[in-house]
Formats: sequence, C-alpha cells, structure tokens
Amino acid sequence: MEFTLGQVAEILQGKVEGDENQKVSRLDKIQEGKAGGISFLANEKYTPFIYETAATAVIVSNTFVPTKPLKTNLIRVEDAYTGFTMLLEAYAMMMKSSVVGIEEPSYMDSSSQMGEHAYRGAFSYIGKNCKIGTSVKLYSHVHIGDRVQIGDNTIIHTGAKICADTIIGNNCEIHPGAVIGSDGFGFAPQQDGTYKAIPQIGNVILEDNVSVGANSTIDCATMGSTLIKKGAKIDNMVQIAHNVIIGENTVIASQTGISGSTEIGKNCVIAGKAGIVGHIKIADNTTIGANTGVSKSIPTPGTTLFGYIGFDMKNFLKSYSLFKKLGSIEDRIRELEKKQ
Amino acid sequence: MEFTLGQVAEILQGKVEGDENQKVSRLDKIQEGKAGGISFLANEKYTPFIYETAATAVIVSNTFVPTKPLKTNLIRVEDAYTGFTMLLEAYAMMMKSSVVGIEEPSYMDSSSQMGEHAYRGAFSYIGKNCKIGTSVKLYSHVHIGDRVQIGDNTIIHTGAKICADTIIGNNCEIHPGAVIGSDGFGFAPQQDGTYKAIPQIGNVILEDNVSVGANSTIDCATMGSTLIKKGAKIDNMVQIAHNVIIGENTVIASQTGISGSTEIGKNCVIAGKAGIVGHIKIADNTTIGANTGVSKSIPTPGTTLFGYIGFDMKNFLKSYSLFKKLGSIEDRIRELEKKQ
Amino acid sequence: MEFTLGQVAEILQGKVEGDENQKVSRLDKIQEGKAGGISFLANEKYTPFIYETAATAVIVSNTFVPTKPLKTNLIRVEDAYTGFTMLLEAYAMMMKSSVVGIEEPSYMDSSSQMGEHAYRGAFSYIGKNCKIGTSVKLYSHVHIGDRVQIGDNTIIHTGAKICADTIIGNNCEIHPGAVIGSDGFGFAPQQDGTYKAIPQIGNVILEDNVSVGANSTIDCATMGSTLIKKGAKIDNMVQIAHNVIIGENTVIASQTGISGSTEIGKNCVIAGKAGIVGHIKIADNTTIGANTGVSKSIPTPGTTLFGYIGFDMKNFLKSYSLFKKLGSIEDRIRELEKKQ
Repeated sequence: MEFTLGQVAEILQGKVEGDENQKVSRLDKIQEGKAGGISFLANEKYTPFIYETAATAVIVSNTFVPTKPLKTNLIRVEDAYTGFTMLLEAYAMMMKSSVVGIEEPSYMDSSSQMGEHAYRGAFSYIGKNCKIGTSVKLYSHVHIGDRVQIGDNTIIHTGAKICADTIIGNNCEIHPGAVIGSDGFGFAPQQDGTYKAIPQIGNVILEDNVSVGANSTIDCATMGSTLIKKGAKIDNMVQIAHNVIIGENTVIASQTGISGSTEIGKNCVIAGKAGIVGHIKIADNTTIGANTGVSKSIPTPGTTLFGYIGFDMKNFLKSYSLFKKLGSIEDRIRELEKKQ
Repeated sequence: MEFTLGQVAEILQGKVEGDENQKVSRLDKIQEGKAGGISFLANEKYTPFIYETAATAVIVSNTFVPTKPLKTNLIRVEDAYTGFTMLLEAYAMMMKSSVVGIEEPSYMDSSSQMGEHAYRGAFSYIGKNCKIGTSVKLYSHVHIGDRVQIGDNTIIHTGAKICADTIIGNNCEIHPGAVIGSDGFGFAPQQDGTYKAIPQIGNVILEDNVSVGANSTIDCATMGSTLIKKGAKIDNMVQIAHNVIIGENTVIASQTGISGSTEIGKNCVIAGKAGIVGHIKIADNTTIGANTGVSKSIPTPGTTLFGYIGFDMKNFLKSYSLFKKLGSIEDRIRELEKKQ
Repeated sequence: MEFTLGQVAEILQGKVEGDENQKVSRLDKIQEGKAGGISFLANEKYTPFIYETAATAVIVSNTFVPTKPLKTNLIRVEDAYTGFTMLLEAYAMMMKSSVVGIEEPSYMDSSSQMGEHAYRGAFSYIGKNCKIGTSVKLYSHVHIGDRVQIGDNTIIHTGAKICADTIIGNNCEIHPGAVIGSDGFGFAPQQDGTYKAIPQIGNVILEDNVSVGANSTIDCATMGSTLIKKGAKIDNMVQIAHNVIIGENTVIASQTGISGSTEIGKNCVIAGKAGIVGHIKIADNTTIGANTGVSKSIPTPGTTLFGYIGFDMKNFLKSYSLFKKLGSIEDRIRELEKKQ
C-alpha cells in the first residue's frame, strides 16, 4: 500500500519539508533507507546517515537542525520516535491482514464452541468440550486439546500445541511450535531401579496479555496449576516446569529454564539462558543476568544477580577479572613463599 | 465424576472418620484444598494445613493423631502417600479418556499396518511400510516417516515427528513436538571453505518404557543407531546427537545437550542444562549437576560432578565460595607483599 | 537393494580381493560389521577390527598390507575414506526415495505457485502469494506463510514452520520443527509496568545452501532482515534473534543462542550451548567454545574464545585448574600470614 508524504504527515500531525506528493510504501532503517521507504531519526548517533540515506523521507523531531544539505524529504513531528512508532503500529495492523474464516480441512469436535470473527487455519484441530472466545485466531496445525478454554482476541500461531485442560486469557499470543500443558517430568523411583510416571493431573493457566515464544514449553502442574500471570512475556525456547508461578509483567528471555514449583515474582527481568532450580521463591523486581544460575530463594525485591551461581553483578565481575589472572596471582604467592 | 468418601475409603481399603456420604470430584494439594476436593497428608511439614484446609476430606495414615479440632473429614489408611498415589493413578486413568478410533482426515500409506485398539488423531500422518503395534495412540499432527516400527501401548503426542527408519519399543511416551530421527549434524569441510553434508543413513532406536519430553530432539546415527535403552526418561528440550547411547533407567532433565557418539551408562541422573561433549563414556550411576559441563570420560561408577567443567561437587562449592571472595584474597596477598 | 562386490568395485574403480559374486546391501561400521554389510578401514586405530569383522567386505586403500589372515573380502581403492564416502552418498541418494507429487489433503492458496518436480506431503500448508521454485520438497505438516519465496531444490522437513515474508534460497534444508520468521522478542515498557509488543515488520532471509536444525528458531527482524548468509550450517535447537546476521559458511552447534542485532562473520565455528549477547560484531574465522559466553565484540579474525565469559582458551584452562585448587591456595596465604 502506498501513501503520499502528505498523507503520512496528516496521520502523524506533522509537517512535510519537501515534496508532499512523493509516495512511500515501506518502513526502513535510516542506514538502510531506499527509494520508496520512510525512516526516522531519533538517536543522535544516527544523524550522519540522514545526509546520505536514499530513503524517500525521514521523520525528524521539530528540534532537528540540519548542518549539511539533505537529499531526502523530512516529516517534522513533535517527537520522531513516537511518530515512527505510531506509523509502525499502523503498518503492522495492515500487514496482519485480519484473517477471518475457516479454511478446510480443519477439525473441531461438535462439543466445542468458538466465538465470532474466528480464524481457523487449515489443519487446525480442536478437541472436545472447548470454549473459545471471540476474534481468536488459530493458525494452521494448531492443536487445542480437550476442555481447553481461550479468551477473546488471543492468537495461536502455526503449530503451537495447547494440551488438554489449559486455560488461556484474553489478548494472549502463542508463537509457532510452543507447547502449553505437556506432562510435568515426574517419575517415582522403584526398588528395581526403574521409574514409574507420576500422573500429571493439573493444568496450565495463562492470564491475559501473556506472550509465549516459538518452541517454548510450559508443563502442566502435577496437581493444581502452572500459572503465568497477566502481562508476562516469555521468549523462544524457554522451559517452564510443572507448578511454576510467573508473576505479572515478568519478562523471560530465550533458552531460560525454570524448574518445578518455583515461584517468580512480578516485574522481574530474566535474561537468556538463565537456569533456576526448583522449589524456590524469587522476589518482585529481581534482575537475573544472562546464563546465570539461581540455586536459592531471593527474598529481597530489586536484587540483581549474575554468574554461574549468581550473586551481586559488580562483585562477580571483580572476581571474574581476578579469576582470569589466577596464574599470576599464584606466582605472587610462590614468590612470597620463597622469600620467607 | 463424583465419589462418596465411603466409596473412596473402599477403594483404598481405609476407614472414614466423619461423614462418609459427602462427595468429592477432585484431587487437591492440602494447602489449596477446596470443598469437593480430597487431599492427603504425608509430610509433617504440611500438618498445620490440615486444621485449616477447606478440602472435603484428607487422606491420613493410621498413625496420625490430631492435636487440634478438624473441620475436614479424614480417610485413614495404612500409608497416606501410597493411598493418595493409588487415587491419583485411578484418576489419571479415567481422565486419559481411553481414546480409540480414527479421526478424519488422517493419512496412512496403504503399505503400512497398525494394530487393534489404535487411535489416530485428525491430521496424523503415517508414511510407507510402517509396522505399528496394538493400542498405540497417535495424536493430531503426528508424523510417522517411512519404515518406522512402533511397539504396543506407545503414545505419540500431538505434533511429535518420528522420522524414517526409527524403531520404538512398547509402552513408550513421546511428548508434543519432540523430533526423533532428524539428521545428525555432520558436514565435511571442503577446500573452498564451504561444507558438504555427510549423508546420515543410520536411525534411532528407543527401547521399551522410554519417555521423551516436549520439543526434544534425538538425531539419527550417521551409520548404525542412536540408542536410548529401556526405561530412560528424557525431559523437555533435551538434545541428543547422532550415535549417542543412553543407558537403562537414566534420567535426563530439561535443556541438557549430549554431543555425538557419547555413551552414557545406566541409572545415571543428569540435571537440567548439562552439556556433555562428544565421543566420551560416562559410567553407570553417575550424577551430573545442573548446568554442568562434562569434557572427558567418567570411568568410575557412582561419581558426582558439578561445575562449569564438572568436578567433585563439594570441592566445586568450596572453590566457588572462595571465587566470590577473590577481591579480598588478592588484598591479603598485597598486604603480605607490602610487609616484606 | 543388493550389489555384488564386483559391482561395488566397478563403481569405486577398485579391485576385489576375494569372492566378487558375494552380495552386500548395507553400510556398516567395521567394529559392528555383519554378513551382508560393507565397511571401510581408513584410520589405523581401527586396523585390529579388520581381522575380526563379520562384514562381507571391507574397503581398504591400495597401501593396506594385512599382517594376519582375513575372513572378509577386500575392495582395494586409491583412498578408502573417499571410496566409502562415494558409496555413502550413492546409498543416501537411493534411500531418499526421490519423492515427487502431491499427497492429499494438502493446502495451497490459489494465488501461490510451486515449480515442477514438487513434493507436497499430506497436511502441508502454503498461504497466499508464495513463489516456490522447482524440485522443492515440503513434507507433512509444513507451514509456508503468506508471501514466502523459496528457491530450487530446497527441502523443508516435516512440521517446519516458515512464517510470512521469509525468503529462502536454493539447496537449503530446514529440519523438522524448525521455526523461521517468528516475531522478534521486542516489548516497550509502559509507565504502569506493563509491556507493549513492538510490531515486528521485518523478515528472515536464508541464502543458498543454508541448513537449519530441528526445532531451531530464527526470529524475523524488527525492521529489515535477519540474514543467514550462504552455506551457513545451524544445528538443532539454536535460537537466532531478530536482526542477527550470520556470515557465510559459519557453523553453529546445538543449543547456542544469539541475541538481537549481533553480526557474526564468515567461516566461524561456534560450539554447542554458546551464548552471544546482542548488538555486537564477531570477526571472521572466530572459534567460540562450548558453553562459552560472549559479551563484547571480537574485532580480530581468527580469535579463539572459551569460558563462562570467554577469553583465550589456554589461559581459561590455566585459571580453571587453579580455581579447582582455590582451597589449598587460600591455605598457603593463611600460612604466610601466620608466619609474619
């Protein structure tokens, strides 16, 4: 879809400096701008690019004063970043062609219900006794197990698997290949050295506005519920074991793993590849660094942890810088020993 | 389904203390007990909850002596934990509505056979020349490649992919999204810096009673077989490379990775996020800690390893506690140097 | 399929020593050789096995001189390893039964095109406005989103998900369950503590000869493209975030994660479970060890890194060996302190 710069300026309540009849159909980064694209300049670091970009137009803040001649058109707005974000959202909305309807073949058991404005992609599957809200999108190869409940406006992307008895709120987004509600990993050792599976009869609850990344796995509870509270954002390939609780608005980056029955507070930030043992409690507003191991409860809100077994980040980095020099440190001890 | 407490007591060969006509339809944790649910008390730590729980009944051992008034009914049995486990299994059996039959559309090549009491979910796929035993369940979106063999009573959950030539025993359970028999990662470097794929012509064999977690991947052998021996239990998102051998009853937790041609003994316990290099041999009964790296063979059965490059756990923790204080340790050395 | 040893020798331009009418139908490792199989001997370490193997024949180099009586037939060739590799490739070619045709039900929007010699497995899905080249294979449960372009001879294995707007080159191979083009993990924090998803409007580009392993995830760019350059080989369960660039012929082993906007050079080798932070640049020919963390740019080509926060491998191992002895090192300091 094409827009004139005049139309874009109108949407953004801004002003064109240049030819307002030129047309754009794409959003570009300023350093990669090409004809037909529109970019933005919000960070001074990128200012040099505005004099060279081939983008048809650049959104700038009213305060921007060029220091060299410009080859591009400008659209001046109150705040360039906000303006660009508005444009980005409008664009994304248009691209997410609001798919509606049922592609065949798809499968829904007759005991299940799905609200209005639904999309069911070809080869999507809905088991028995499910209740699915309005404006829900189920892409191709989605599996919805028996007795699953899903709120309004939730999107389940291609190939995601929602196992039996899962409850999902409104405005959630489950990315491709994620598995919600698989059996927890619980086995009782027998006297002959074998293991017997412990029945996993609980479920998973995702509250509203939860996002789960591609190929992540969230196990059902042994009993009760594995609970992801509202607004939590989970990246790709994150493993969440049975009976874990994740607090509101907590963000968990890729490849992190959280073991069974651990409870994470709200507004925490957990970086990639972190590993958290089972049966502990992490306070609100905790920050856990990349690849950090957490082996015991964190009672104090606002703590920051880093390291193989995480502790205070500044101290970890101090210790690690000395670890790198352990060879010369030992030399110094040997020197002292000689001189005795 | 509802049961009276009298009926439950009969199943468990126990005795009701209270109203045996009250009904329960759910299993709850004692600390989360609600009306209509039945809980159990087996761990003294949880004793305080029995005086407050809203559960309709609690299963207790014959030896339990209340020290305060109780609001809940009791079912007394020989051993409360065993009793509850029996109930759990009966409940799980009922919930796993024993699905049987063929949902359409599903796909099975005419050269393949599947035994009696089969379940094939909609959109399940079976390629050419497969032999599948009796009472096997293939959920929606399962892929069974050409020439796959599967024993009796095995369950393949939604979206799991069993690639060509894989052999799976009896009573196995493959969880959603797991991939068994994908190509091993083998590339021959060429003189121009590119890589050429080495054909992976082997397969994967899972013996009886093996469990593979959601979104785990087990690669086929370059030649011969990647072998998971009977009773091994593998959690979610575990990566097992080509030609690996996993011993009987070995348990591997989530996000662990095992590189090519490594052989793990029997009855080992490997915690989450461990990483094991290729071409080594791990003795029976080895315990490998969470996030532990293993870079060489472990010849002695019963070894316990922990750490970035794993060694004896107690020593690792001693070293790590000193690592945390390296700053002050260096200060002490500096002090000694000054005083010379 | 069976071949006489005479036929095999003809293919390999070699000579039979023994009975050229005996037949083989399988490739075996020399230490696991069985009647009806053919093995090879290229590494001296395996020489003892040639006197004991039950394989019907063994391929050896012309220079091989037996020192004991042999029970097996020989096929002598210029170079045994090259000969065996030729056989392996011929075998793999035959096994990959060159599937062609359309299994039903499958789904392709009428606006999309697919070239000649196509294979579309049952339950494969192709969205709107896709352009797919000749001799492309899409196995069962593959999802191809809207506006995807795929070059010639590319294979997409069962259950892989190629999201909207992805561009894939010629001769690529995408293994089962991989997700290409899922949304990047980008959320803007709001004043009330919640997060708002930042629209991810970019795409993923895979150039020619790229391989992506089972259950790996490659996110689309926020704007612009996540780019995997030609010949890059990516193992299972690797996470590649939005806007990452991977250079030509770079190899990345399993469970590695690369954060947003990082650029990896060409001909790098990245071992398993490595973690690389976002917004950095890794020079060409860098080697990153297993489980190594990389927290800043590597400007010098040919660098080798290892460790929790990676540095020079030899120095890391020196420091780690002293870390193991930190207890006794502290004892020595204490001793020195006493003697003052």
